[in-house]
Amino acid sequence: MKLNSKNLQERTDILYDAIVAGGGAGGLSAAIYLARYGLKCLVIEKGKGRSFWMQELRNYYGVPPTAPGRELQKHGMEMALHWGADYLRGYVEDVADRSDHLEVKVKVGKENSIYPVFKGKYLVAATGIIDILPKLDNMQNVYDYAGYTLHVCMICDGFDMWDQKAILIVQREPQIEAAFVLSWFTPYITVLTHGQCEVSPEMRAKLQEHGYPLIETPIARFLGENHHLQGVEFTDGSTIECTTGLINMGSIYHNHYLKGIPELTWE
Amino acid sequence: MKLNSKNLQERTDILYDAIVAGGGAGGLSAAIYLARYGLKCLVIEKGKGRSFWMQELRNYYGVPPTAPGRELQKHGMEMALHWGADYLRGYVEDVADRSDHLEVKVKVGKENSIYPVFKGKYLVAATGIIDILPKLDNMQNVYDYAGYTLHVCMICDGFDMWDQKAILIVQREPQIEAAFVLSWFTPYITVLTHGQCEVSPEMRAKLQEHGYPLIETPIARFLGENHHLQGVEFTDGSTIECTTGLINMGSIYHNHYLKGIPELTWE
Repeated sequence: MKLNSKNLQERTDILYDAIVAGGGAGGLSAAIYLARYGLKCLVIEKGKGRSFWMQELRNYYGVPPTAPGRELQKHGMEMALHWGADYLRGYVEDVADRSDHLEVKVKVGKENSIYPVFKGKYLVAATGIIDILPKLDNMQNVYDYAGYTLHVCMICDGFDMWDQKAILIVQREPQIEAAFVLSWFTPYITVLTHGQCEVSPEMRAKLQEHGYPLIETPIARFLGENHHLQGVEFTDGSTIECTTGLINMGSIYHNHYLKGIPELTWE
Repeated sequence: MKLNSKNLQERTDILYDAIVAGGGAGGLSAAIYLARYGLKCLVIEKGKGRSFWMQELRNYYGVPPTAPGRELQKHGMEMALHWGADYLRGYVEDVADRSDHLEVKVKVGKENSIYPVFKGKYLVAATGIIDILPKLDNMQNVYDYAGYTLHVCMICDGFDMWDQKAILIVQREPQIEAAFVLSWFTPYITVLTHGQCEVSPEMRAKLQEHGYPLIETPIARFLGENHHLQGVEFTDGSTIECTTGLINMGSIYHNHYLKGIPELTWE
């Protein structure tokens, strides 16, 4: 059943077979299978994860290409509930190993938050990653394009960049290498470091050889309308034209809540 | 584009980047990605593969639980065509290695068949497996229940067998071990060998210990209506009651068409 701050007390005394941290594709698939095996499980989803941002799932087998990630997620949540899983909107803060079970502390509610603790025999850590986006004063300006014409995955969305004027946004020099793969889809590539890193003479030479301009001035804002990118304005007032882009600034694992488990090894 | 016996000549002279044998979940996913990378590919689907038989896809993330496998397959085919793949209904008969490319011979049409040969740089072998079903004089009687209440995958469909009177159909003794896993879902299990194998005294003792009857008389026909199993009639005229079943007779790889490739190793 769907839990919330009003009814979750009914579930803090039971011992779940598994608690699933993360209600994206991985966590919900796990919950569907667990529930169909008759195992009592609780999915905890913080909202606005990576699949939430996908505006059109072009590659997902059997689903119309225009279906957004959030639709799949909603379907998956309904399926998990239908088969008997519990589902809670909340943020997993901490996991403690009590030897015969795990205690999972969850923050529920952004304001007047409560912090219930759930018990489970197992934890499925399906909290995934989040892509690093360029930090601008006005982040809404980034969200207006990210997931629409400003992509984070070349495998998923390279197709939508065919022969377009593209920007590649990086924050470390090795990330510039993506330009020489993105060239499969378009020859018009401008690399932006957003003022985040130095670029070696070797890389500068390689970019020049390929004819890919390098701009190191920080981005001020993205230009365009209706989620359609048309250009970039920099902090020095200069602008360039572009109709698409790839953000390749790396990603962060959501795994802070596992730091309290002493047996885990970290890279 | 969709190829058929009338228009396929337009494609027998080109060199595909990849030819995909099999238009199920694997083959169509491959085709969708290949096409979105701008690679020219041809999917060849014989029809009536394993996913075609799935009447309700209970576990597939993001798709309503009642959607049948064939609906997913139709969606996938339309997506692959949409992104630029070619698609042909036919049966891959043989693949020959011409060192710089592969030649793929296809049987098209059940009557007045033609045998076009397509050329590809790569072959994606996505022809999967087919479950072995019990052979009865009237196979339609098997098809009336298989995929509905007579299942082939415990992981997918064990849920639909909870506490029901179940039959487990095997053709080799080791396949009987599935009974001791199926017991997760129901304690009412009758094992049928359909007269296909001997059963050792050890296994007989184990079944007896668990209280699972063993019937070695061949099956004459399945009883029931509207795809709902109600029992089994045996060749000696006896009958038993059951409302569900698991066919665990193994499966066959569709890979005969690769026998002409000398580099492959076979188990």
